[in-house]
Amino acid sequence: MYTFDQLSEKINGIIRELKIPEYPVELYEPIRYILGIGGKRVRPVLALMAANLFKDDIEDALPPAVSIELFHNFTLIHDDIMDHASLRRNHPTVHTRWNTNIGILSGDALNIYAYGHLLTSRKDKLFRLLQIFNETALEVCEGQQLDMNYENMREITMEQYLEMIRLKTAVLLAGAMKIGALVADATEEQIRHAYNCGMNLGMAFQIQDDYLDTYGDVNLFGKTIGGDILSNKKTFLLVHAMEHLPPELKEQLFREMDVAEPDEEHKIKAIRELFDRAGSPDEARKKMYQYYVRGMEELQKIGVPPERRVIIEDLAEKLVSRKN
Amino acid sequence: MYTFDQLSEKINGIIRELKIPEYPVELYEPIRYILGIGGKRVRPVLALMAANLFKDDIEDALPPAVSIELFHNFTLIHDDIMDHASLRRNHPTVHTRWNTNIGILSGDALNIYAYGHLLTSRKDKLFRLLQIFNETALEVCEGQQLDMNYENMREITMEQYLEMIRLKTAVLLAGAMKIGALVADATEEQIRHAYNCGMNLGMAFQIQDDYLDTYGDVNLFGKTIGGDILSNKKTFLLVHAMEHLPPELKEQLFREMDVAEPDEEHKIKAIRELFDRAGSPDEARKKMYQYYVRGMEELQKIGVPPERRVIIEDLAEKLVSRKN
Repeated sequence: MYTFDQLSEKINGIIRELKIPEYPVELYEPIRYILGIGGKRVRPVLALMAANLFKDDIEDALPPAVSIELFHNFTLIHDDIMDHASLRRNHPTVHTRWNTNIGILSGDALNIYAYGHLLTSRKDKLFRLLQIFNETALEVCEGQQLDMNYENMREITMEQYLEMIRLKTAVLLAGAMKIGALVADATEEQIRHAYNCGMNLGMAFQIQDDYLDTYGDVNLFGKTIGGDILSNKKTFLLVHAMEHLPPELKEQLFREMDVAEPDEEHKIKAIRELFDRAGSPDEARKKMYQYYVRGMEELQKIGVPPERRVIIEDLAEKLVSRKN
Repeated sequence: MYTFDQLSEKINGIIRELKIPEYPVELYEPIRYILGIGGKRVRPVLALMAANLFKDDIEDALPPAVSIELFHNFTLIHDDIMDHASLRRNHPTVHTRWNTNIGILSGDALNIYAYGHLLTSRKDKLFRLLQIFNETALEVCEGQQLDMNYENMREITMEQYLEMIRLKTAVLLAGAMKIGALVADATEEQIRHAYNCGMNLGMAFQIQDDYLDTYGDVNLFGKTIGGDILSNKKTFLLVHAMEHLPPELKEQLFREMDVAEPDEEHKIKAIRELFDRAGSPDEARKKMYQYYVRGMEELQKIGVPPERRVIIEDLAEKLVSRKN
């Protein structure tokens, strides 16, 4: 039985040993950098855990699991350029530390490198792995595109929001579990349930993220509370409030959002109060819990003995009760 | 026996029929756009021609050939962002017509899509195809990085220049021929010669490009003559002149390059004269011809009957005698 930290360390060990070329330095140094500044490695760990449902030996899951983490880090480099983000995991983002061109190009190289690493997977599963990888990667791009589109829209529906986080966040966790199950020789039905389990956990994960950004404990959260509110980000809370506030309070919400240079403390407080009036935080917790429960149902449907799935149940429980 | 135009039209036919998703429109419309504004399709045509050296039926070469063209178009989108280019094939570049974020993300999607298309290749060759594709793709990124590095350097050596164009341009033509030979069941030795043939043609192709930008006929070239001189681009001509001008003329070259807002006509004329003094255009023609000859030697070494290689000989001859 593995712990999360053991699996995460296993992934980090492999990442440290990757033979990333040296030259040109400007191309490969940013790749070493983004891979070296940490991250919880949730996606590859989930892939290993999914494999561990079926087999004690999880060696076969390591190459595709690491590839997913490499792909994820490529998307972080490019997303940070597109979102003008200056910090990532408490370190300067690649395009801030170097420049935008280096961010674009080293991201491209990391994407290609992720495919290269995937080729070290079990040969008999490679075609399926590549199909899953491609499909998921394209969906992640679609999710990022929707996220950017929605930034420029005054209002989006809950349906649009859920589809966006499904593509941007959840499919990669789903793909990770699918890949883990596949290389551990699970049946097609088991692979499908593993995918659905990851999808629901991914949805829960993102809604919890949205919740904590506004209602988290500043001492535990690790970053400033209210960042999403200040940037008018289309979170579960905002979308829910817009759909449920009576017209006059909805107008007030728009007015607060429209102030060009707001007093930050005031804006956070005012909008949080409107979220409270709409019942948005309770609804977020409820929705998140629903996804969590559905994820655990899918996990059970995989049909392995309870003692094999306890490690994923533990992780899922931590995801929904986490404070940071 | 095919003509270049027939093969190019074959590629265009497949590209027109690609099932590129519709939504989100902002992600996929730029992909349709870049694929729709033309281009000579030299790389995929070379892949088909390489396959045709060994087999009459070139169907197996179509998927990897098209993938190479898709990959190439992805690099064009990102390169144009990095180079701040506003025109490509006489049309606005993607990031100019839409914006930088859309350029980054649709480029990423096209790169992934290229891998997806590669999966439709012959299953028994897929692993090798992916290896070649990854290796080549990473080298193309390295070449673009070197190109950007050299922009900020006052002087580079001919050795650095040749390594840069090898990575940025030649390896993709080499990879195209390698892939064509591979799927047509060529021997390892034949595959190696096909690769070397493409590499030498690629080098010749780029040096001819550099030459035409300064010494081409404006009526035939299709774009303004002297663009490279105006942007101080590290071309074969400039690098050669720097290495061969006597100190006082080299100083004069630097002075002309350093004028902040030069009279364009004067700058082009003055620097072209310095190139002439250094013997750079003759040397460019000579070097280009050397690569062409070496490419044709490699083609012969493949060891297929002369009538099978005449189509590539024709293309190579056109590449070196082209005026645009």
